[in-house]
Amino acid sequence: MDAETKLAQLKELLAEVFDLNAASAVLGWDQQTYMPPGGAEARGNQLSTLDRLAHVKFTSDEVGMLLEDLKPYAAQLDPESDDACLLKVAARNFLKATKVPADMVAEFSKASSQSMQAWQQARAEKNFALFQPHMQKIFDLRRRYAELFAPYDHIYDPLLDDFEPGLKTADVKAIFTALRPKQVELLKAIKSRPQVDASFLHQNYDGQKQWDFGVEVLTKIGYPWERSRQDKTAHPFTTSFSINDVRITTRIIPDYIGSAFFSTLHEGGHALYELGVSQSLERTVLSGGASLAIHESQSRMWENLVGRSLPFWQHFYPRLQEYFPSQLSNISLETFYKGINKVEPSFIRVEADEATYNLHIMLRLELEIALLEGKIAVKDAPEAWNTRMQEYLGIVPPDDALGVLQDVHWSHGLVGYFSTYALGNLVSGQLWEVMQAELPDLSGQIRRGEFADMRAWLVEKIHRHGSKFEPQNLVQRVTGSKIDPAPYMRYLTNKYSAIYGF
Amino acid sequence: MDAETKLAQLKELLAEVFDLNAASAVLGWDQQTYMPPGGAEARGNQLSTLDRLAHVKFTSDEVGMLLEDLKPYAAQLDPESDDACLLKVAARNFLKATKVPADMVAEFSKASSQSMQAWQQARAEKNFALFQPHMQKIFDLRRRYAELFAPYDHIYDPLLDDFEPGLKTADVKAIFTALRPKQVELLKAIKSRPQVDASFLHQNYDGQKQWDFGVEVLTKIGYPWERSRQDKTAHPFTTSFSINDVRITTRIIPDYIGSAFFSTLHEGGHALYELGVSQSLERTVLSGGASLAIHESQSRMWENLVGRSLPFWQHFYPRLQEYFPSQLSNISLETFYKGINKVEPSFIRVEADEATYNLHIMLRLELEIALLEGKIAVKDAPEAWNTRMQEYLGIVPPDDALGVLQDVHWSHGLVGYFSTYALGNLVSGQLWEVMQAELPDLSGQIRRGEFADMRAWLVEKIHRHGSKFEPQNLVQRVTGSKIDPAPYMRYLTNKYSAIYGF
Repeated sequence: MDAETKLAQLKELLAEVFDLNAASAVLGWDQQTYMPPGGAEARGNQLSTLDRLAHVKFTSDEVGMLLEDLKPYAAQLDPESDDACLLKVAARNFLKATKVPADMVAEFSKASSQSMQAWQQARAEKNFALFQPHMQKIFDLRRRYAELFAPYDHIYDPLLDDFEPGLKTADVKAIFTALRPKQVELLKAIKSRPQVDASFLHQNYDGQKQWDFGVEVLTKIGYPWERSRQDKTAHPFTTSFSINDVRITTRIIPDYIGSAFFSTLHEGGHALYELGVSQSLERTVLSGGASLAIHESQSRMWENLVGRSLPFWQHFYPRLQEYFPSQLSNISLETFYKGINKVEPSFIRVEADEATYNLHIMLRLELEIALLEGKIAVKDAPEAWNTRMQEYLGIVPPDDALGVLQDVHWSHGLVGYFSTYALGNLVSGQLWEVMQAELPDLSGQIRRGEFADMRAWLVEKIHRHGSKFEPQNLVQRVTGSKIDPAPYMRYLTNKYSAIYGF
Repeated sequence: MDAETKLAQLKELLAEVFDLNAASAVLGWDQQTYMPPGGAEARGNQLSTLDRLAHVKFTSDEVGMLLEDLKPYAAQLDPESDDACLLKVAARNFLKATKVPADMVAEFSKASSQSMQAWQQARAEKNFALFQPHMQKIFDLRRRYAELFAPYDHIYDPLLDDFEPGLKTADVKAIFTALRPKQVELLKAIKSRPQVDASFLHQNYDGQKQWDFGVEVLTKIGYPWERSRQDKTAHPFTTSFSINDVRITTRIIPDYIGSAFFSTLHEGGHALYELGVSQSLERTVLSGGASLAIHESQSRMWENLVGRSLPFWQHFYPRLQEYFPSQLSNISLETFYKGINKVEPSFIRVEADEATYNLHIMLRLELEIALLEGKIAVKDAPEAWNTRMQEYLGIVPPDDALGVLQDVHWSHGLVGYFSTYALGNLVSGQLWEVMQAELPDLSGQIRRGEFADMRAWLVEKIHRHGSKFEPQNLVQRVTGSKIDPAPYMRYLTNKYSAIYGF
């Protein structure tokens, strides 16, 4: 059998794995949108069967032998070709999926499930002690997982690599070491100035009108409804079953105009990324985004760099006032713009503004690494959390529900994930500077409600590649440098010095 | 390995097949309700992969050997026990699934797909000649399929058995031979009398109010929303992913009050059946209905024997008048009742009233059998159709789109299916008579909007058994006789003699 035949065989096997994973994603979407509560137990069985079959199919000897046999062929290909990237990513995933013993997978799955339940109770009762043994177990299991991939430069590397392929702990540490003092300094400058008013955002805003405005803006920025949709869920998310079937959800809070709309733009940014992947990558493992950080660079760009910018609201604010005349007709564009950009240190990451968000992330990253290294004991995590909150944000949570217990991630076994949120912000800043240079009229276009050039730029530079390239290489390709905090800090400083006048 | 262990192994394998089929059903539901059009191609791949894996898993040597090994064990069990029925039904399905060569499955799948397309064009152009070679191919392939199951009493038997396990062509012929003259006679009696008025059903009825009224009635008859839902689709259907997740859809026609409501009740009847199956049968092949005819007996019972009855509207008509005062306040209950029961021979089966529906079915069944036997050539099907329409209903379609081309079934390869619609009507009549005898206040309860006893009776007698029993045995068990047209004819005659006064 020649290499082309083997490649075709491998692609067909991988496509079936893709189909199973896509089916699982459809079932997950349904579970969170429309499934009646009675369906939960059966849905658990269905998802478990699909996931197990996908794993068995992907880690089969057949796939392994084809990947092995195709190595010489892959070496001859243009390394940027679809086939070369597919073989590379498939081999990487195969190695990871086959390295972990089945009993460790089962133990981890069981521990996560118990840990989730304990975390929910601990958070509700504001009692870290209930979660502590489970958190200990999760970090122990993640350490054992990481050790499977020895040798490594740092034990955190294999965990980080699951979310940011190719990125090293040393890189992230260097980035955040450079970033932290600048973020703290910016926050001090803002806090030294009089606060802006945002109380008008908290009035009664009709839910249907909020929905309609969000849909109108999505349509205006070029959201392709024939390949997508939006639904309502308790927690907003984006999911994808194909390059041509990508879905987002939002959550409407009637007493606050700032929630649904920015979540719609955020998830819309994620979705535009998946919708912009080259059709040649359909039904392959390359059809998703390059990494969580690159994904977040897209969602945060639409939510913040576009959606909280003055040009954007110069275009859309009159329209929003038409939707909500009684709430907004007496609020000037300037007041509105300042209000949606109000900076205020707070306990909860997901509610944080652009100036404080990265500080929340750094705190978590430092804690994760220290816990994994054994430099901080799990029992001391609440205190370590609170110390850093005081140091970075100047506030201390009154209880652990507003502190170390606030995020679902660790309880779910997600260690190595947090930094991707902040890295996404940084990448969005880098892309924004290059895009502004290459599209000199970008601000003018946004002010006129024209988004075609921006979308086309993002598709050309980022989206179409799917996950062909590792995140650092992709950023290098587009901006000429690896992930770098400077552009994002320039963006923040420019923006907030104008708003707060320093 | 002892029998209990083998049984547990088999059950787990069958449960995984069930999960794959359930996942496929979720994807099908999504495809018809919410999927954006762009998702169609990927969805086709996903469904094809799930269906293929389910087939491979079910027809595996492992399943075959376990079924074979468990035969002595099954023979010792109480034949009405869940395990005995599971083994029996699984063995029957396994035999069918493994008997058909893979290349015949592929050929049939390809032929059906091409035939569907040809049928759509032929119907649109009212040109039978375009469909004729495809219909020929379908019937040839179905004949070859049936021959795989030789010896048989009649070549139609294996086809019928796919939809009505255990039922024979001779049984169906005997039933319909007894039924036909009585149906024709009833129709003559009705046509000899003055026609009733139903024009008030065709006015503008607000779609949302139609929806709300349907939901209100479903709720009143005890529809368990925590385990179900209703959505809108082009063609109404019921689907099920679990005993605790059964979903229906409806279609709203704003100019006709008779469509959405009765379709809601019809699909609601199907759904109540699946929702009433014993929880001990969850995640097994026994969790569906006994057959299409038994299923139809439930949907038609709620739609017609309940939903077009006088007691039902004595309860609900005042409420409907509140929803639609301008359309119905001047229409008396009696006029409304007669209007929704108007009898009028028409060309289209799916729009037929209760008095003519079975005649449409008999025509199709006779044609199917004669085509399969070779007694009628495919090219002569249109003429054979029209001759019978004249004979049974007294009308002749002006073109084949309103005649032999109207149904999707044959184009889709569904031969052996049609009689189940009429058999369902007959069974509904048999069950109704027994239920009335055992619940003497049934009419009074319905008049008072009380449905708990009726629901409980149906669960106890029919629903809870799932597909444990073959349809003839189930009917025998409940009514003391096999499928028998007499009760349904008594029901029709009583009803229409009162409405039309003969």
